[in-house]
Parts: sequence; structure tokens; C-alpha cells
Amino acid sequence: MAFDALTVRDRPVADSALAQLFTEARTRNGWSDRPVPEALLRRLYDLTKFGPTAVNNTPARFVFVTSPEAKARLAPLMSEGNRAKTLQAPVNVIIGMDLDFPDALPKLFPHAPGARDWFADEAARRESAFRNSSLQGGYFLIAARALGLDVGPMSGFDPVGVKAEFFPNSAVEPNFIVNLGYGTDENLFPRSPRLSFEEAAEIL
Amino acid sequence: MAFDALTVRDRPVADSALAQLFTEARTRNGWSDRPVPEALLRRLYDLTKFGPTAVNNTPARFVFVTSPEAKARLAPLMSEGNRAKTLQAPVNVIIGMDLDFPDALPKLFPHAPGARDWFADEAARRESAFRNSSLQGGYFLIAARALGLDVGPMSGFDPVGVKAEFFPNSAVEPNFIVNLGYGTDENLFPRSPRLSFEEAAEIL
Repeated sequence: MAFDALTVRDRPVADSALAQLFTEARTRNGWSDRPVPEALLRRLYDLTKFGPTAVNNTPARFVFVTSPEAKARLAPLMSEGNRAKTLQAPVNVIIGMDLDFPDALPKLFPHAPGARDWFADEAARRESAFRNSSLQGGYFLIAARALGLDVGPMSGFDPVGVKAEFFPNSAVEPNFIVNLGYGTDENLFPRSPRLSFEEAAEIL
Repeated sequence: MAFDALTVRDRPVADSALAQLFTEARTRNGWSDRPVPEALLRRLYDLTKFGPTAVNNTPARFVFVTSPEAKARLAPLMSEGNRAKTLQAPVNVIIGMDLDFPDALPKLFPHAPGARDWFADEAARRESAFRNSSLQGGYFLIAARALGLDVGPMSGFDPVGVKAEFFPNSAVEPNFIVNLGYGTDENLFPRSPRLSFEEAAEIL
């Protein structure tokens, strides 16, 4: 289906959607016990995967931690301040980055058969994996909100431990971890200040 | 205004919005000459800034390159394959990361007066700046689409040259560059394949 057939591309989405995605959305620290169906996790991935990445390399990998057994493996690896909310959220998502992403480029970027060789250098490969899996993490967080879910992203965990526990036999390394579900107002901070346009941007 | 007063938070946004943001959106390689008003660039920043970052550190910085003079400084620093479309797009956005972001934490994260010291280590500071400015880059790209704009993100440029030309006297380093405007179908690739859920994700 042509994009232009489906939507008027040059118009903003509804104000209510902008509010849900950005202006009124909040990082949640408290979680209801309302579960997130597997079908919704799959739908979330099926939105996230379309976000743009360098040469379509899509290095992000997603481990949805939902069972009590899996949560018991993750919780001790979280920073103390993140542990209770990680156990409370119905889903924790470990967003990893696959340093072997070039192996998939013949499939993902078929019109450039040599693309795999562009990442022969290990530092360049790591940089691209980190940048693009983080971008995909951003798409994931906004896509979750677009589906009516709340998110709580966290960097406070033991990355060596999470690598050993969840990615022992691959080139995937953890990037960050997200609590996912339906949030409550428990432990909700007042909205923190943001930088003004003049502090963070300029027009040349 | 309370979030719940504005929108029913647990429902997906409209299908047309999901299409505009994700499923039917495309990276554009051709650009119409329709300009992007400054007010829209400011509105774009005012959505982007609300996306979540670690301890609200918001390290991304945005240089909107719009004038012929500024574009003439940027174009020679782009990879050859990116040069023509960079000149054609009405706006190029250099998304940088400020390695001095901890200096703003007393303002941005006021309830933790010691937050600045959490990033004393240079490697940790750089990692957080890179991860969180990339996340903000993801928010920026989706926010642009939400406002009816098209995007074309690029990693192919001379980062040392862009640093010297656009950020000579600060701790800001370029992360990636985005063409912004109203795209055409010129040089539009067929949609490249994506990894299946089973290839990129698992549920534990």
C-alpha cells in the first residue's frame, strides 16, 4: 500500500497522540499488575523494527522477561534502587546490541552485497551497534507508548552480569533495560526541567 | 494538566498515526524545496526534549543547518554519497552529544544534588552521552514524523571535520546527521527486509 494512499503525510498526528507519545508521557516507577499479552509484545516489535538504522543494520535484540523464573534471574543484577520496580513491572525488556550484526546484512541490505565488509573494524562495528541499537531503543519506547503502554528505561544494572546470564553464547551485549506495562502514579516524580531551545539548539 | 485528563492512556493511537510514525514511513533520499518554518523546528525540539533519558541528562544538542552559507560548510564534510541529498534537503540537523552534560544536572535533576559526581569517570560520561543522545535522536526522528516531516538520518560524514567546523569551542561531538523536510519518491529504495520477531527477540 502506498504511504500517500493511507495518510496525509505532511500533517501532524492528533494532539492527543502527541500528548500520549511526548508531552504528557512520564517515566513510570510504579506498576499495576495488569499483564501485557504476548500479542501486544509482538505488535510492539513489529512497529519498532521499521525505525531507520544505518544500512538497515537493526542491531537491537529484545529479551522480554515475563516469567517469575526469568525475573528472579534479572532482579539481583539490577541496581538496588531499580530492583523493586523491576520485580513489580509485568515485563522487563533487556535491549541488547548484537556485535555480529554484519552477518545479517546480506539479508537486511541486499542491494549492497559488500555491506558486511564495511564493518570489518571492531571499533566501528561496536560504535554502529551502540548508536543504532540505542536509536532502536528510542523507537521502542515511543512505539510502546503509541500502543498504550508505559515505559521505565534504566541504565542501572550490572552489564557484565546481564551479559553472562542472558547472552552467554552470542555476541549480544546489553545496552539498557526497560520496565514495561501499565504504570501507576506511585513514586511519580514531578516532571523535571528540560533545556530550553536556546540551551540545546541553534539555527544556522 | 494531568495526563489522564487529556487522553485515555492505555489505548493505541490511531492506525493512521502508527502508519505515519512507523509502518509506512520511509527514509527519504529526495527532497522537495518546500521550506520548514522555524516555528516547526522549535515545536520539534519541544516534543523531542520530553523523551526519557538517564537521570534526565538530555545530552543531545541540535544544530539546524538551513542557510546556504551553513550548508556550504557542511556539504564537503559529508560522504560523497550523502552530499547531493544533504544539499537538496531544506534542513540538515547535526545531532551532537555534549560530554559536559553533567554540568547541567543540578538544573535537570534537582532532587539528587550529587548527580553530577556520578559521571566523574570519563568513559562512563562518554557512554551515557552516546547512549542517551542516540535515544534522543530516535525521539527526534519519530517526533519529526509526528509533525508531518520526513527524515533521512546519516552516519556517513567526517566526524573530526564536523566537530572542528561546528563545535570548535565546546565539549559537543557529532553523533549523527539528519536530513529534514518534505521528501519525494526520488531514489526511494524498495522497503528492505526486517528481522522476524524470532530472529531479534525472545520471551522468557
